[in-house]
Amino acid sequence: MKRIVVEKKILEKNDDIANKIRDLLDKNRIFGLNVMSSPGAGKTTLIERIVEYLKPKYKLAAIDGDLDTQRDAQRIAALGIEAVQINTSGTCHLDSSMLQKAINNISLDLDLLIVENVGNLVCPASFYLGTHKNAVLISTPEGDDKVKKYPTMFNVADVVLINKMDIVQFVNFDVEKVEHEIKEINPNAIIFKISALNNDGLSGFLNWIESNIQLIKNS
Amino acid sequence: MKRIVVEKKILEKNDDIANKIRDLLDKNRIFGLNVMSSPGAGKTTLIERIVEYLKPKYKLAAIDGDLDTQRDAQRIAALGIEAVQINTSGTCHLDSSMLQKAINNISLDLDLLIVENVGNLVCPASFYLGTHKNAVLISTPEGDDKVKKYPTMFNVADVVLINKMDIVQFVNFDVEKVEHEIKEINPNAIIFKISALNNDGLSGFLNWIESNIQLIKNS
Repeated sequence: MKRIVVEKKILEKNDDIANKIRDLLDKNRIFGLNVMSSPGAGKTTLIERIVEYLKPKYKLAAIDGDLDTQRDAQRIAALGIEAVQINTSGTCHLDSSMLQKAINNISLDLDLLIVENVGNLVCPASFYLGTHKNAVLISTPEGDDKVKKYPTMFNVADVVLINKMDIVQFVNFDVEKVEHEIKEINPNAIIFKISALNNDGLSGFLNWIESNIQLIKNS
Repeated sequence: MKRIVVEKKILEKNDDIANKIRDLLDKNRIFGLNVMSSPGAGKTTLIERIVEYLKPKYKLAAIDGDLDTQRDAQRIAALGIEAVQINTSGTCHLDSSMLQKAINNISLDLDLLIVENVGNLVCPASFYLGTHKNAVLISTPEGDDKVKKYPTMFNVADVVLINKMDIVQFVNFDVEKVEHEIKEINPNAIIFKISALNNDGLSGFLNWIESNIQLIKNS
């Protein structure tokens, strides 16, 4: 029981800071998008695609969480936008205090702030960061049993991207079953089937991001 | 600072119970193998292969950890060995108290106890369970940057299995680079390149398990 109390306190403190981040994003009319998935599902590649498509029209920045290495932020920064790496040194998710420190280091003259969470299908789902929407990736080689096994993650998703559709024929992945199970857990989730690597099926998701940017700009 | 102290206490309590589990395994001459990976890297399929090959010669049981569902234990039990499912209800790893409860529910007339941890490349690495060895899977579609990003997991690995070699040509995965980075972090790790789905490259790993079973039998 002690542990549960401690975790509750940690989550309450996390929510307090997250609410301040949300206020800051709203005040500056910035759409905050939190991207979550297992390791290697394609978060960084997806964010590269978002930057390539939206950079000509909008001001973007990215904050990348990883246990170690600067690799993800370096990949995003190579596309010419501001990117900050958070190294969590063993922690399995970003929390709002980590994000707050990273936000303090970027310019807030932005339309879109992309947060790439630590590769993990469990912990990040429990930590609200103050961002407006959650995009969850699931990749076909992970197998088609992940939705029911990790329900919390799919429950908090606003958008679910089924990635690596380019290799679906080489792996055991029943797309219809996965779509059905997502809808069972979260009827409001919007589902896109994509290949971030091959630039396939991304227009719907990019339109959804643009709509959210506009919504916040006009709020 | 407070949070770190709390985590230290949790880990100390975990280690106490894990040490008792180790004593129990040793007393009963049971080799305990903890299998860890990202979600969907192929743990359950690998365990199915282990059971198929070793069941004719040894007495086996499996304990499967997942946030939710009984699917993994059902898959293993279908092969005719005892399998117990632990549902962690949101916790991102097994701990020794969960394992202790599951062990209390199985017969200890065994040669090999396989523990399938929660699909997660972060948290399970920090929780010693009392098992003798750690096998870590990495699958080729996850990408070749995972070793440096999740060093703790590869640091605790006795064996690293590079799985899904059957689709390596369809994904971005430099096998030599990954092997090199594993050796940099953990020079003692034994590496096997396999396809659990297609039964490829498993003999070295199965021999390694048999050697460990014999070692404990003769200790």
